[in-house]
Amino acid sequence: MIKKTKFTNRDLVLKVATTLFLEKGYQVTSMDEIVAESKVSKTNIYYHFKSKEELLSAIVKQMISHYNQIMSDIASQTHLSVTERIGALTVLLSEQQPNALGGCPFLTIYVQTSHESDFVRDEIGQFFQNQILTLEKLLQEGIAKKEFNVHLPVSQIAALIVSTIEGGLFIQHTRKDPTLLPTILQALAFMLK
Amino acid sequence: MIKKTKFTNRDLVLKVATTLFLEKGYQVTSMDEIVAESKVSKTNIYYHFKSKEELLSAIVKQMISHYNQIMSDIASQTHLSVTERIGALTVLLSEQQPNALGGCPFLTIYVQTSHESDFVRDEIGQFFQNQILTLEKLLQEGIAKKEFNVHLPVSQIAALIVSTIEGGLFIQHTRKDPTLLPTILQALAFMLK
Repeated sequence: MIKKTKFTNRDLVLKVATTLFLEKGYQVTSMDEIVAESKVSKTNIYYHFKSKEELLSAIVKQMISHYNQIMSDIASQTHLSVTERIGALTVLLSEQQPNALGGCPFLTIYVQTSHESDFVRDEIGQFFQNQILTLEKLLQEGIAKKEFNVHLPVSQIAALIVSTIEGGLFIQHTRKDPTLLPTILQALAFMLK
Repeated sequence: MIKKTKFTNRDLVLKVATTLFLEKGYQVTSMDEIVAESKVSKTNIYYHFKSKEELLSAIVKQMISHYNQIMSDIASQTHLSVTERIGALTVLLSEQQPNALGGCPFLTIYVQTSHESDFVRDEIGQFFQNQILTLEKLLQEGIAKKEFNVHLPVSQIAALIVSTIEGGLFIQHTRKDPTLLPTILQALAFMLK
């Protein structure tokens, strides 16, 4: 018999709060609104999360751990060429959330939160730092395997790729045009050759 | 006699509101707070701006017109090479506002406002579109003047430059490291040659 994964009240609250924070805004969403939308009782919500900040922190940790896991899986697929793995990473990180106020969910939460939530903003910063480091390691592996030119400025290119993805997600959100980022990543890949 | 430019109550309100919107957030800043911080009377503020939305709209129009003017000045300096003018444009657009919640003031306002302020969000989108078009024209001029390769994919490169600047401003804000964007723009310029 297949064991069903139970979708708990905690999961439901996380899901509802994520949508509200990304599509309406963190600062203007109240715990009362999360109670109303999720239909989970206030007592039950506060049993899981002592405050809105704690809820935000749980959401960001969950999002980061989800992406870090897939990034690490992609990076370790050594049966693929480095170019293929970098391509798969950029596809993963280019996932647009059209309903999030800023395109990328991490950027949206970062800009929606104030300095009172600096612990969460720092975690998001570390997540981007981890993206850059993952790309640096892959670029170095690519140089060692002679896929890339030995003179490639590894750390700058890694930061350039991550910045292009974030900026591209944002600009294509302002233009309501999901074809912008794939096109500029193609131009970047072409120049890297 | 030098005529002094009068710094009006309207200017003061715009200045105070810009700081609050960028550093604290648009949605959580109230008109009462703008009254308290600016020390301009409520009656006087409402004489100039009927609502917080009208104030936001005036701020964004002012910011956009300021940057559009300088961009157009730079683009028309035909005594400079196209490469020099593109360099000057990227320096202008790379100006970091470290206290703004998201690095770039336009990105911060875009992500801080909800769909209720879509008219302002659309204007910001058009401003970025104008940046891309200005760069496209310069790149085409550069090709005509043989500064760039005739096979340069003009529209993709223009969108890539604008995306890299926005993403770079954001990523360097999360890292509190203002050297990131200049470095990756150098890498990009190097690849364009």
